[in-house]
Amino acid sequence: MKASALFSDLLGKVAVIGRAMAPTNGVDMTIEDRCAALLAGRGEATELGLARDILDRFAKLDPKDKQAFFSTVQTRFGVDRPALARALADLDRADDEDAARNIHFASEPRSQELIRRLNRAPNGTRDLVAIRRDLLRAIQKDPRLAMLDADFQHLLGSWFNRGFLELRRIDWSTPAAILEKIIGYEAVHAINGWDDLRRRVAAPDRLLFAFFHPALRDDPLIFVEVALAVEIPASIAPILAKDRRPIDPSHARVAVFYSISNCQEGLRGISFGNFLIKQVVEELRHGYPSLDTFVTLSPVPGFRRWLSAELAKGSTGLLNDTERAALTACAGPVPPPPDLCGALAVRYLLQARNPAGQPVDPVARFHLGNGARVERINPEADPGARAQGESWGVMVNYLYDLAAIERNHEAYANSGVVAASAQVRKLLPRR
Amino acid sequence: MKASALFSDLLGKVAVIGRAMAPTNGVDMTIEDRCAALLAGRGEATELGLARDILDRFAKLDPKDKQAFFSTVQTRFGVDRPALARALADLDRADDEDAARNIHFASEPRSQELIRRLNRAPNGTRDLVAIRRDLLRAIQKDPRLAMLDADFQHLLGSWFNRGFLELRRIDWSTPAAILEKIIGYEAVHAINGWDDLRRRVAAPDRLLFAFFHPALRDDPLIFVEVALAVEIPASIAPILAKDRRPIDPSHARVAVFYSISNCQEGLRGISFGNFLIKQVVEELRHGYPSLDTFVTLSPVPGFRRWLSAELAKGSTGLLNDTERAALTACAGPVPPPPDLCGALAVRYLLQARNPAGQPVDPVARFHLGNGARVERINPEADPGARAQGESWGVMVNYLYDLAAIERNHEAYANSGVVAASAQVRKLLPRR
Amino acid sequence: MKASALFSDLLGKVAVIGRAMAPTNGVDMTIEDRCAALLAGRGEATELGLARDILDRFAKLDPKDKQAFFSTVQTRFGVDRPALARALADLDRADDEDAARNIHFASEPRSQELIRRLNRAPNGTRDLVAIRRDLLRAIQKDPRLAMLDADFQHLLGSWFNRGFLELRRIDWSTPAAILEKIIGYEAVHAINGWDDLRRRVAAPDRLLFAFFHPALRDDPLIFVEVALAVEIPASIAPILAKDRRPIDPSHARVAVFYSISNCQEGLRGISFGNFLIKQVVEELRHGYPSLDTFVTLSPVPGFRRWLSAELAKGSTGLLNDTERAALTACAGPVPPPPDLCGALAVRYLLQARNPAGQPVDPVARFHLGNGARVERINPEADPGARAQGESWGVMVNYLYDLAAIERNHEAYANSGVVAASAQVRKLLPRR
Amino acid sequence: MKASALFSDLLGKVAVIGRAMAPTNGVDMTIEDRCAALLAGRGEATELGLARDILDRFAKLDPKDKQAFFSTVQTRFGVDRPALARALADLDRADDEDAARNIHFASEPRSQELIRRLNRAPNGTRDLVAIRRDLLRAIQKDPRLAMLDADFQHLLGSWFNRGFLELRRIDWSTPAAILEKIIGYEAVHAINGWDDLRRRVAAPDRLLFAFFHPALRDDPLIFVEVALAVEIPASIAPILAKDRRPIDPSHARVAVFYSISNCQEGLRGISFGNFLIKQVVEELRHGYPSLDTFVTLSPVPGFRRWLSAELAKGSTGLLNDTERAALTACAGPVPPPPDLCGALAVRYLLQARNPAGQPVDPVARFHLGNGARVERINPEADPGARAQGESWGVMVNYLYDLAAIERNHEAYANSGVVAASAQVRKLLPRR
Repeated sequence: MKASALFSDLLGKVAVIGRAMAPTNGVDMTIEDRCAALLAGRGEATELGLARDILDRFAKLDPKDKQAFFSTVQTRFGVDRPALARALADLDRADDEDAARNIHFASEPRSQELIRRLNRAPNGTRDLVAIRRDLLRAIQKDPRLAMLDADFQHLLGSWFNRGFLELRRIDWSTPAAILEKIIGYEAVHAINGWDDLRRRVAAPDRLLFAFFHPALRDDPLIFVEVALAVEIPASIAPILAKDRRPIDPSHARVAVFYSISNCQEGLRGISFGNFLIKQVVEELRHGYPSLDTFVTLSPVPGFRRWLSAELAKGSTGLLNDTERAALTACAGPVPPPPDLCGALAVRYLLQARNPAGQPVDPVARFHLGNGARVERINPEADPGARAQGESWGVMVNYLYDLAAIERNHEAYANSGVVAASAQVRKLLPRR
Repeated sequence: MKASALFSDLLGKVAVIGRAMAPTNGVDMTIEDRCAALLAGRGEATELGLARDILDRFAKLDPKDKQAFFSTVQTRFGVDRPALARALADLDRADDEDAARNIHFASEPRSQELIRRLNRAPNGTRDLVAIRRDLLRAIQKDPRLAMLDADFQHLLGSWFNRGFLELRRIDWSTPAAILEKIIGYEAVHAINGWDDLRRRVAAPDRLLFAFFHPALRDDPLIFVEVALAVEIPASIAPILAKDRRPIDPSHARVAVFYSISNCQEGLRGISFGNFLIKQVVEELRHGYPSLDTFVTLSPVPGFRRWLSAELAKGSTGLLNDTERAALTACAGPVPPPPDLCGALAVRYLLQARNPAGQPVDPVARFHLGNGARVERINPEADPGARAQGESWGVMVNYLYDLAAIERNHEAYANSGVVAASAQVRKLLPRR
Repeated sequence: MKASALFSDLLGKVAVIGRAMAPTNGVDMTIEDRCAALLAGRGEATELGLARDILDRFAKLDPKDKQAFFSTVQTRFGVDRPALARALADLDRADDEDAARNIHFASEPRSQELIRRLNRAPNGTRDLVAIRRDLLRAIQKDPRLAMLDADFQHLLGSWFNRGFLELRRIDWSTPAAILEKIIGYEAVHAINGWDDLRRRVAAPDRLLFAFFHPALRDDPLIFVEVALAVEIPASIAPILAKDRRPIDPSHARVAVFYSISNCQEGLRGISFGNFLIKQVVEELRHGYPSLDTFVTLSPVPGFRRWLSAELAKGSTGLLNDTERAALTACAGPVPPPPDLCGALAVRYLLQARNPAGQPVDPVARFHLGNGARVERINPEADPGARAQGESWGVMVNYLYDLAAIERNHEAYANSGVVAASAQVRKLLPRR
Repeated sequence: MKASALFSDLLGKVAVIGRAMAPTNGVDMTIEDRCAALLAGRGEATELGLARDILDRFAKLDPKDKQAFFSTVQTRFGVDRPALARALADLDRADDEDAARNIHFASEPRSQELIRRLNRAPNGTRDLVAIRRDLLRAIQKDPRLAMLDADFQHLLGSWFNRGFLELRRIDWSTPAAILEKIIGYEAVHAINGWDDLRRRVAAPDRLLFAFFHPALRDDPLIFVEVALAVEIPASIAPILAKDRRPIDPSHARVAVFYSISNCQEGLRGISFGNFLIKQVVEELRHGYPSLDTFVTLSPVPGFRRWLSAELAKGSTGLLNDTERAALTACAGPVPPPPDLCGALAVRYLLQARNPAGQPVDPVARFHLGNGARVERINPEADPGARAQGESWGVMVNYLYDLAAIERNHEAYANSGVVAASAQVRKLLPRR
């Protein structure tokens, strides 16, 4: 460990040397020309330096130039068409597996190899994650860049596979540099400074777990905050209260996942959340034998938007006349009464479907896809402005029952069945 | 760090659960059917357990069954031909970049995704490296398996890229479990037990550096042994001598790389050696400012084999009449005189070429490819049986001159020029 | 390291067992009776438990009961007088070294052995430091307790000797639990929360070093804050400014020790500060070769108090008529003009003496005792309320010149000479 | 951790500087004069350097000069007699606690302060332990040096108190430098090289635990080797066998302490063994819940020597006529029959007493003092030459029954009662 610290910056030095060795006649080479040189090269010392140089130059580009860079890269380093043509001709001649496989290798966009070579630079992975973040933004303006993003997604998915991730508990003995990042990354219930953080990681009945990747040593990928409790919570305020009294963790029965935050925008679509929750459940079972219930306390971000759309649809929508009438009655800024709110949320979660046939709510999709079930609907659970705007403050407990997870998952994945407790299903209107 | 230790085996537990959840009606499923299930699955808990199960089952197969497994996997999980046909039809309709790129994804052999999913299992990477070792053996019997090996090579190359490797110094404070592996892996000058190892890692003028990958935590990938010296060594015995007197490292001028060993047979063809040497040179320059010369003391494994072939060729070969005569004169077990040995070795290293136009000697190819130059030929440098059999004990110093590395490398890579010192070039016959 | 983590709380468990084994008929024993039992005991398991029990009970006493406890301990566990009488009789019979040495052992107050046995309990050292803090407070009310304090001082001095201390750099990768303590312990220039701390430990031109003892693992004993600069600073504000621009540390010439804080009130009088500064100077010289000047920027806490006393003395004091007149002229809340302030501070630092013949100012005593010299007086250097009240904001640079430290120290220790720069000495009135 | 590594040798540098600053006119000072200077000094930088210098010089002395050094130190740095006389006069005047306590401080031999100051040097503690080893040897020749040894024993006992020790498990991930020391220190059943060590620390049913002190970082103080078993072992060979089959540790019922070795000769008489065993019992109970029995398999080193002495005493000894006759009958190299051996060993362990009224056997004293009981006598348990010479190979199981330890200990300490199982007591002759 010590020894490795000694060398921590050596890779950097090698790159510096490589950079120094890079052709000096390249002073006015464009960054795209440098990418071409990197792809052409065979000398590793040059390669590391050149890769580092490209990453450094990219980071200094303004958004417009980044947009142009992505377009150029996608166009210039696409599939090697003559090579593909040769491979296709081979397949034509002999329609065998060998020829078919060759097509795969022959048709690899050169942008993939470019990304791989950039990844060899010191801190290359970290920079590539940042580049993908920029690419995702660039796609907003130019959807055709999705082709290039397919390369990124493919390679990052391979490099950030589950086997390389490490789960760590974050607590008050964690370095400040990491804790500071946690404060910044919390996306659900904002952490208001160090004192608030301390309440979430250092209280005896609070825990925080994060996934890390070796190439982003001190930068978490995703984390989940856990509260130990004696019963399933119906609202968020008591969990976040400043002056609450911690419970004795040895008496806790319920573990509540009350916040899950993805940290790296550049890894969007590369999923670790499902592994995280299951592994944390394992950890908690091991460390706190008195626990027997694992639930979330989750927002319902798409609820009101969906309701508005349904109302607009009139009788062609999912809502029946009674529901539409009740909703219309409480128009304006006044939220519907809690019972109505709850009943509508059940319809939303269990019955509303997007064009792909999945539940409309993204949080619901995540937990149902993991094999959890809708355990309880909690109206008036979050008084915060965002929650009011999204769902009148309704929150949901999703239950992770290890014995049922696989069955729920299979039913959901294969038949679209949304698992829900009897008490939730009872809230659906009888037909 | 501590926290991560607590969870070290959790991933394992998740896998166990997943395994327990695997369909019980699969009791008599073949291992290949299990691979098909893994490819079909979408439920991660199942997936980890199933992947672990496949890896465990493979490890227990006998060589014959492994051979059969590889064949089946290559055949059964090849390219999805209908999907490829559809992509080709698309390309036919619209010959654009999008369609070309889609061919790449459509033609990916399913075996690649299978390997990726196996890699998510706890310790999956370690097992995949072992599987590749078995595959390389299987290819000996069935060269067609090279297609499957292309998948392994592609993915392992991506996972073991330079950016993920960590250089560590190995010394007497290294855990015994790692040191024991070093003893086992040394492939050039065998380490005869712990006392010999101690001489190589704990003497003040000896160092050993290794590359590690996070997924093979305590198992080195490659290592190099270094001796500090006051001049370039002409033979190996003084370096390995039991009773030698260590020199004061602060007076050392020369760092000698006297042994480089690849540790993982399953990573053959995935190259880290070039990075290793350059990074170790950096480390040594930093830690021992008095050093100004970095050389190897290397074997010449193909020398005698090549000479025999040349003799057989007669006048059509590279040797001239004088050389052939001299060689024939000293036939039998008696080695040629040192001068002749040296002169012939120079011809072998600088002029002999394999069908690909590269130097015949694999060690020469490695160092020349790195940008080193042939600095000195040392006849009678290694009295060991193997060295005698391969090269009558001739050894070579390759010099790593940081200022010339890039130039040498370029000249070698582009024009096949073998860099050599003046004293070496003088040994070539005048034309 | 990992292994040791596994056992970290085992010692605690042994103590728990020991406690459980403690005589149950002792339910109503006083804490002092328990001390007597601890002194009488020979069984280690009991002893650890009993010691732990005494420490726990003491912590819960209110200040009055602590005061009573100290008195009782001092009286009840004093010198074993009959044993001393016997040893004196032996000395009377044979006036030899053996008999004289025996007197030392025979006259050891039993309170010393009591403290030693308490120290064997898990976390005993930590608790003893806290007890000494309480004792120092109790001495305020009952100066006779100084006898008991001599035992504490003797033993803590032995346990906290220089050889057991470890210097660590504190930075942004330090665990939050330690950083939080640093915020609380800073005694000179208060750290206003985490953002202020970040500026002091994470800026490229700021460093913080602390001494730790193995028995107080994550609790610093003393720390020093360092600013890298291009010239000797004349005031504190630019150093602490929120929006300052960090300098490139490779261009720094001056290291400024601008704050030194003792952390453990219970270790008052056990000195580590001198070792700390010298060791940090070494570290800085090693890590920042461009540094050539090591100075403090220090407060002058006793300046105004001394001036008032001198004024009251009239012509019998150190001040001459001119000085007294000038001082009187600027009476009231208005501070004297900077030049006068500086000149008077020089007299105070160089000439004022306490009854023991040492400089009056405690900060001066500390640095002069270390071998530093008074380099420069800075009037109007600290606008803070405390500094204004103590010294009208005058601050001093003490210079640590490694080549002169020993000579300065010897002259100061043997002859009371206060080392000072020529520019400072010039400010003394001519005689 | 990293940070502390950076400074690891800084203390050393400070000492070097101090040494450089030491008076150059001291070139021909004796080592004892240097000690006097160290005692006289007040300047810490000098002090560290001077202390380091004295320790280095001592290490190079030959045994004769060391002997002389100890004598000189004891004589020259004894009690300050005038100071003692003054303190005695004070006591004469006022016979109070204050005066009595002052006598303790006044009579402290200056050698104690000398040892304390030497301890402040870098690695001072380590060197002082080595010096004490030399002192113990010197006492063999000059018993009067026991006075000086009292100082060492007093201070080392204070520095090596239980609260500062750390228990670590030693296994195959332990650095080779520590493992090598374990091989060298094993004093009971020699470890024959690395393969033998591996069997003792890396088998699933074998464990090794050691105590460490922060000042001797990688050098153990004492260690114990543990075998997990299904029943109490009756002989040592199966435990040490090369080719034995490990048992599944989750089925183990018995933990066998089969070897305990003190590592530091210089810490003789400073006892940690009792803490070690109890703490390891705790650790094992925690880690291996199936364990219910904790025993030793111990040698009986004084058995035959005592028997010879008893035989020589004739009827005035402990042996009765029958026993003496039986013993005489099997004179010569032939050992007595096992039954007789066992019966005599019981008499030896339970009834033989040394002049201090304690059991004669040192191993028995250690375990009985810890509160263990004599559980079983095993004749023919150790065929090794040493065991045969000492005890005809008889070994003993001492049982650590946590519920009885305290009671046994008290009975032994207060009344000299040797706890023994019924089966052992039955072997005593009826009266």
